[in-house]
Amino acid sequence: MTKTLKGIAASDGIAVAPAYLLVEPDLSFTKHSINDVDSEISRYKKAVSDSTAEVEKIRDVAKKSLGEEGAQVFEAHLMILNDPEFTGAIETEIKNSSINAEAALDETAQKFIKIFEGMTDNPYMQERAADVRDVSKRIMAHLLGKKLPNPASIDHEVIVVAHDLTPSDTAQLNKKYVKGFVTDVGGRTAHSAIMARSLELPAVVGTGSITKDIKDGQNMIVDGLDGVAIVEPSDDQVAEYKQKGEDFLKQKAEWAKLKDKPSVTADGKKFTIAANIGTPNDMPGVHENGAEAVGLYRTEFLYMDSSDFPTEDDQFEAYKAVIEGMKGKQVIIRTMDIGGDKHLDYWDLPQEMNPFLGVRAIRLSLKNENIFRTQLRALLRASAYGKLGIMFPMIGTLAELRQAKGILNEEKDKLIKKGVKIGDDLQVGMMIEVPAAAILADQFAKEVDFFSIGTNDLIQYTMAADRGNDNVSYLYQPYNPSVLRLIKHTIDSAHENGIWCGMCGEAAGDNTMFPILLSMGLDEYSMSATSILRIRSLMKKLSTADLKELANQACYVSETAEDNEKLVNDFMAKLNK
Amino acid sequence: MTKTLKGIAASDGIAVAPAYLLVEPDLSFTKHSINDVDSEISRYKKAVSDSTAEVEKIRDVAKKSLGEEGAQVFEAHLMILNDPEFTGAIETEIKNSSINAEAALDETAQKFIKIFEGMTDNPYMQERAADVRDVSKRIMAHLLGKKLPNPASIDHEVIVVAHDLTPSDTAQLNKKYVKGFVTDVGGRTAHSAIMARSLELPAVVGTGSITKDIKDGQNMIVDGLDGVAIVEPSDDQVAEYKQKGEDFLKQKAEWAKLKDKPSVTADGKKFTIAANIGTPNDMPGVHENGAEAVGLYRTEFLYMDSSDFPTEDDQFEAYKAVIEGMKGKQVIIRTMDIGGDKHLDYWDLPQEMNPFLGVRAIRLSLKNENIFRTQLRALLRASAYGKLGIMFPMIGTLAELRQAKGILNEEKDKLIKKGVKIGDDLQVGMMIEVPAAAILADQFAKEVDFFSIGTNDLIQYTMAADRGNDNVSYLYQPYNPSVLRLIKHTIDSAHENGIWCGMCGEAAGDNTMFPILLSMGLDEYSMSATSILRIRSLMKKLSTADLKELANQACYVSETAEDNEKLVNDFMAKLNK
Repeated sequence: MTKTLKGIAASDGIAVAPAYLLVEPDLSFTKHSINDVDSEISRYKKAVSDSTAEVEKIRDVAKKSLGEEGAQVFEAHLMILNDPEFTGAIETEIKNSSINAEAALDETAQKFIKIFEGMTDNPYMQERAADVRDVSKRIMAHLLGKKLPNPASIDHEVIVVAHDLTPSDTAQLNKKYVKGFVTDVGGRTAHSAIMARSLELPAVVGTGSITKDIKDGQNMIVDGLDGVAIVEPSDDQVAEYKQKGEDFLKQKAEWAKLKDKPSVTADGKKFTIAANIGTPNDMPGVHENGAEAVGLYRTEFLYMDSSDFPTEDDQFEAYKAVIEGMKGKQVIIRTMDIGGDKHLDYWDLPQEMNPFLGVRAIRLSLKNENIFRTQLRALLRASAYGKLGIMFPMIGTLAELRQAKGILNEEKDKLIKKGVKIGDDLQVGMMIEVPAAAILADQFAKEVDFFSIGTNDLIQYTMAADRGNDNVSYLYQPYNPSVLRLIKHTIDSAHENGIWCGMCGEAAGDNTMFPILLSMGLDEYSMSATSILRIRSLMKKLSTADLKELANQACYVSETAEDNEKLVNDFMAKLNK
Repeated sequence: MTKTLKGIAASDGIAVAPAYLLVEPDLSFTKHSINDVDSEISRYKKAVSDSTAEVEKIRDVAKKSLGEEGAQVFEAHLMILNDPEFTGAIETEIKNSSINAEAALDETAQKFIKIFEGMTDNPYMQERAADVRDVSKRIMAHLLGKKLPNPASIDHEVIVVAHDLTPSDTAQLNKKYVKGFVTDVGGRTAHSAIMARSLELPAVVGTGSITKDIKDGQNMIVDGLDGVAIVEPSDDQVAEYKQKGEDFLKQKAEWAKLKDKPSVTADGKKFTIAANIGTPNDMPGVHENGAEAVGLYRTEFLYMDSSDFPTEDDQFEAYKAVIEGMKGKQVIIRTMDIGGDKHLDYWDLPQEMNPFLGVRAIRLSLKNENIFRTQLRALLRASAYGKLGIMFPMIGTLAELRQAKGILNEEKDKLIKKGVKIGDDLQVGMMIEVPAAAILADQFAKEVDFFSIGTNDLIQYTMAADRGNDNVSYLYQPYNPSVLRLIKHTIDSAHENGIWCGMCGEAAGDNTMFPILLSMGLDEYSMSATSILRIRSLMKKLSTADLKELANQACYVSETAEDNEKLVNDFMAKLNK
């Protein structure tokens, strides 16, 4: 039966394909003693050989679709499945303790995992713990007669349906066959949403119940334009949505023509549309989508994708690659935003009751000056290779800003004394994401070269609503007049003090937010690279003269977020008439 | 050797006395098998009889100092120590398993605790779990040769020194002999600080290391006026601080004369100084300190001190007691603020990653309408007995306020139809504690009868700094100009719309904050009852004419919290000259 679910439109586009349910089965079991040890051992051996056959099959498919590197993890799994030290230990445990295979497997695997994880001086062996965990899960599934999802073995077009998608899930997906994502939870800033936009796949997140409403293999539609997922659509619906998808692709082709065009309004005013990136690997997308700058380089991935703190030279190379890649266009690099929801295996930070209100970003940097100074030196050295802006995240007080700038200047002076060249165009700026900083933007503007508004955090603090908590997502309101007043005050304060103001939160690439921001005179709009051409096209249709009153209306006449959605919709409807 | 520690001045006054270290010893042990069962059992029996003798002694002291009721818990402990079913089970375990007494004690106690805690239909037996835990701890201490702190047995004047003080710690303290508190952690809003103010004991919290810097019985000074603790003071210091303490008491006696006087400035302007309360039991303190209103009745204690949701009648009686007790003076009752850091045993709420940014207060009420409606009916019925203001906490959007008011009006209409009398003076207001609400105060002011600013939360959200997290306490800045701008905008918006504005956070009773708030024209100041007379005396010295410029300076000229401390200090110094 056809069923329509409403969710959050997380990434543009339309797809029609069978669902692939990426849901882990329940692998719980009861430990019990057994009488017939021999038959238990043969049951266990069958589970191992079935697992081996299955992994071999997955490996072969993965090799074809993901390449040698993508299949490597499965070679590691096969090594463990063929390792008598591991599989034999489980047999011995069944025999000696007369317990069921599930219990013997679990206890033995835990022991091995503990040993591997304890090898803190050998990162290679430490990583084997994850392999043992994966292999045990597979044997356990066979013992219990359950089916594990095998995303790497997908060999036909599918729409991936999951409760949520983790980075390790998406790493195993064969992007060739995946046509879209639909999830139960998450918002526009969830990993699954960001990943979908960077892969240019349609995605709908936060449907609430899609994993319960669809069975593996059932046909479905994902409409990432309007945030709709349809289970078992009618033939008419399939035809209608295929048309809608084609229209969208045509529109995208139109947008593509704007790639090398400037970002300009209908009345000829020029602004900057920039890209947000996480690593130098994102640079092809930046160029393909005609970004005029990198507005946010999130350096925490350098730390997160590493087994120890990245060295000054490692960082220097990464920053230089991006700066050189932009050929004179500006690159804004944010110092690390670790803490909050981002943790490092090799850095033991205290547990906090409210990590989003705890020691994160610049707070952590200022408490760990050596780590901070290493990053600043790498940035300063890289500044010679183009036009760099160094940006401090989570600044809440002038004292913090002055302390951070003081440390930066000390490192700069030391490098200059050593004869190291520093870029002439180097700018120093700050994120506006703590409400206190937005409120005092008029004072902060006197002490930096630029602002970049981080809406993701600014909204969550202003509304006191965790942006990752589904139970308060109705309060995470980008269009709330209170948020818009803070944004307007920030932009006005920047301009009154002769500095530029950008935005690097998801809101900058949002169709409803954009006319309001343009009306406020925001200078730079930094977003996922895949949003750039859509926004450049939208900018072309808007005239700053027509927009003059929109910001004031949104801030001072509207009372709710819904009022502002209506305000912009009405404005656009009049424009398109 | 004399050592001086700086902490947070949490409660006024000076005390000199020996330290009483309320620190739990390490009771960890290793389980091992034993050969000589008989000698292990006699070792265990000696620990039980020593424990019994100790508890009897504590009970006798407690009976004298705390009364029958305070000593009851120790009678319960003695019953368990004399219960062969419990003590015998441990003996049997030593015998049967040939393990050491510590392990047998721990395992047996855990079993009993589990059984008691499982009796969910018998709250009396459930509470016995805590007794078994306490008794086992005591026997364990004797087995390990460690000394447990016995706060109930204190029989001479002491200053209690602890890492932190929990409600159950303070319940056992004999207030007659306790002259002050000093702790390692906590801020002005910690339980220990609030408790100290309500007992009128000097307290210094957040010293960082007092439990390590002092030994039990060493002499010490606690200076709750300036936030200083001195270990092993010199004779000169003792004399100096005793004088300072006497001066303070003289000042307090002066303040006491203001008990029945109005709250009025030097130039004759009248304001309201009100009390914050948690239960009807706090009413004597409200009257003794001459409160002109109850500015905040925190109803969550009704829910927290109960084993199930309080009934409508239970609530009605509590609200009525307070309203009648105030004899026509206004009482502001806040609907429950559950969630965040406040949980109920009988209400299973989802775990949240950032509970302060999650489902709490009005958010929880709107998601659980039946519980909310019960509270509203109790409030509406109580409104007939005096002058009530109903206040909604954590309002962030106009949609929430309208929904809460809609539900209130429905219940009101239903009661009126049934012939129930509703007070004519009933007002409906909201807390201003979410930054979004402060920013849009001009819009909210059109839809309520009053505001009350909740600084504790408003500061933590504005600064994005958890008020319970010691690692970011330097960012929890009441005097930050950003916080003051939000407060000023809230007060101005109230007055422009003809409603009154109060404050019920700790800041209202703070000597540095008060002149700024008075300069802003805040109408009502609600605080711990013990702060009222101090603030009334301070108000008498201040003239609104002199204060005219202070608010603008604090909001727009000052750049940091430190600037504002200096601003007020300079202002007061000039005044006192």
